[in-house]
Amino acid sequence: MPSRAASHSGILGIICGGGAFPFVVADAAQKAGWSVVMFAIRGFAEPEVARFSYEWISIGAAGRLLARLRARNCRDLVFVGTMTRPRLRDFRLDWKTISLLPRLARAFRGGDNHLLSAMAGAFEQEGFRLLGAHEVAPEILAPAGALGACRPRSQDEADIALGFEVIRTLGPLDVGQAVVVAAGHVIALEAAEGTDLMLARCRELRENGRILLPPRTGVLVKATKRNQDRRIDLPSFGARTIGLAAAAGLAGIAVEAGGTIVPDLQAVIEAADAAGVFVVGVNADGSGR
Amino acid sequence: MPSRAASHSGILGIICGGGAFPFVVADAAQKAGWSVVMFAIRGFAEPEVARFSYEWISIGAAGRLLARLRARNCRDLVFVGTMTRPRLRDFRLDWKTISLLPRLARAFRGGDNHLLSAMAGAFEQEGFRLLGAHEVAPEILAPAGALGACRPRSQDEADIALGFEVIRTLGPLDVGQAVVVAAGHVIALEAAEGTDLMLARCRELRENGRILLPPRTGVLVKATKRNQDRRIDLPSFGARTIGLAAAAGLAGIAVEAGGTIVPDLQAVIEAADAAGVFVVGVNADGSGR
Repeated sequence: MPSRAASHSGILGIICGGGAFPFVVADAAQKAGWSVVMFAIRGFAEPEVARFSYEWISIGAAGRLLARLRARNCRDLVFVGTMTRPRLRDFRLDWKTISLLPRLARAFRGGDNHLLSAMAGAFEQEGFRLLGAHEVAPEILAPAGALGACRPRSQDEADIALGFEVIRTLGPLDVGQAVVVAAGHVIALEAAEGTDLMLARCRELRENGRILLPPRTGVLVKATKRNQDRRIDLPSFGARTIGLAAAAGLAGIAVEAGGTIVPDLQAVIEAADAAGVFVVGVNADGSGR
Repeated sequence: MPSRAASHSGILGIICGGGAFPFVVADAAQKAGWSVVMFAIRGFAEPEVARFSYEWISIGAAGRLLARLRARNCRDLVFVGTMTRPRLRDFRLDWKTISLLPRLARAFRGGDNHLLSAMAGAFEQEGFRLLGAHEVAPEILAPAGALGACRPRSQDEADIALGFEVIRTLGPLDVGQAVVVAAGHVIALEAAEGTDLMLARCRELRENGRILLPPRTGVLVKATKRNQDRRIDLPSFGARTIGLAAAAGLAGIAVEAGGTIVPDLQAVIEAADAAGVFVVGVNADGSGR
């Protein structure tokens, strides 16, 4: 367990969005000695949340959430799971939330990252401590080296190097967590649309002939932006990403080792080997390949 | 007429792709004193080409094209018009083209730019001189200052500045001729997909709620990459771009003055005023706003 979490109170509140990832984190946290209480966001959290001690919460009811967190003695918090496109009918506004609205409204631009940052700051002002999912479950971070049976060729290594260079170059401008490079050219840059849509675009550009490349050419590179709040915004990928990359005709995926979350490593390895694409974790200093 | 074109032979061969832009260039070149011969690419050039002295050519028949250029005494050439997605049935391969294929095949990756560069190089090796459309028709370049009635607000000015910074930052990596910035955040980065698809993506991200922004927020910024071959790859825009930017909810468009082609300035001004979006040409030193 990393140092920040070492002094923990023993009770961890997990604010639980959609997908299976919150349960991976909860299981890992329990294994590491935490008592876990799940705060399941209505409209997003999966029914599997019932495996744990849990309560339902509504988006917009920040006052009630703060009260329940205190009632359950959760001083340490993790935000985890997907929360794209909340439906307005899932909102249950309370006065505490309304008092936070001007701050949230300023932040709710350009995608989810800034909203989450603002929410995190608001919780810390209330005396809670926000931890990253990787701090309570470090085993979910991508390791260095090849994750499956396939290996990058030398052409892929060059594409990987260019991809990391693009991400490093864009980092100070707070944009670009992912990029697709093929045969030495940058094919797609991710901004607000997310990795899935960017990969779908690469597939379309190849299918309609806008880009002509041999099959299995090109690499998806994902890394953290510099200055990124790693507690709430580490890039993640899974078997679904592998499928989209394969469908886009790419040779493989390179991620930042220790800086990318892989909720289900075994599923990723199986999907990569089945699709014949490589997945490598690359250390910040370029080693691990 | 700029210095390069001042010593011209008097006869200009225009290799003519799709759209109305080749005719704008041809008219301007005639006005400037050139004798124009159009080489209309089968499957792309519009029937309007018959207004000029013209011949049909086929993609893939480079040998025949070189012979016809020599027969018509065209030493100076301009490539102009769209040529995305040539249909294979429009190809008429000859031996000269086949001898160029290894070079073209290496180049035909990552979109049209590199293919055009390689074609340009091949023509120059054969003793022809390639001119930019803006060299024979300088009046088609975007001027500095506001082009229509709308003006950027101070928030738009900040987005414009960030957009140019992103393009300058990416320039050395040979990517990023256009970017969309809204309320201080980079919403979309253009790579191989082109400006139209990038604007369509911004529209979708707003319509499906992935990005929440007030209407008329955000700016499309277009500029040349550093080291770009301006003869074959100046960014251009027209009334269609205005429509797509307005549909994406943007406040306006900023382009590099003197570095962006506007084939029909009057149509752009009318479309911008009708849509209520601003269009500004910005000098490389940041003036002109």
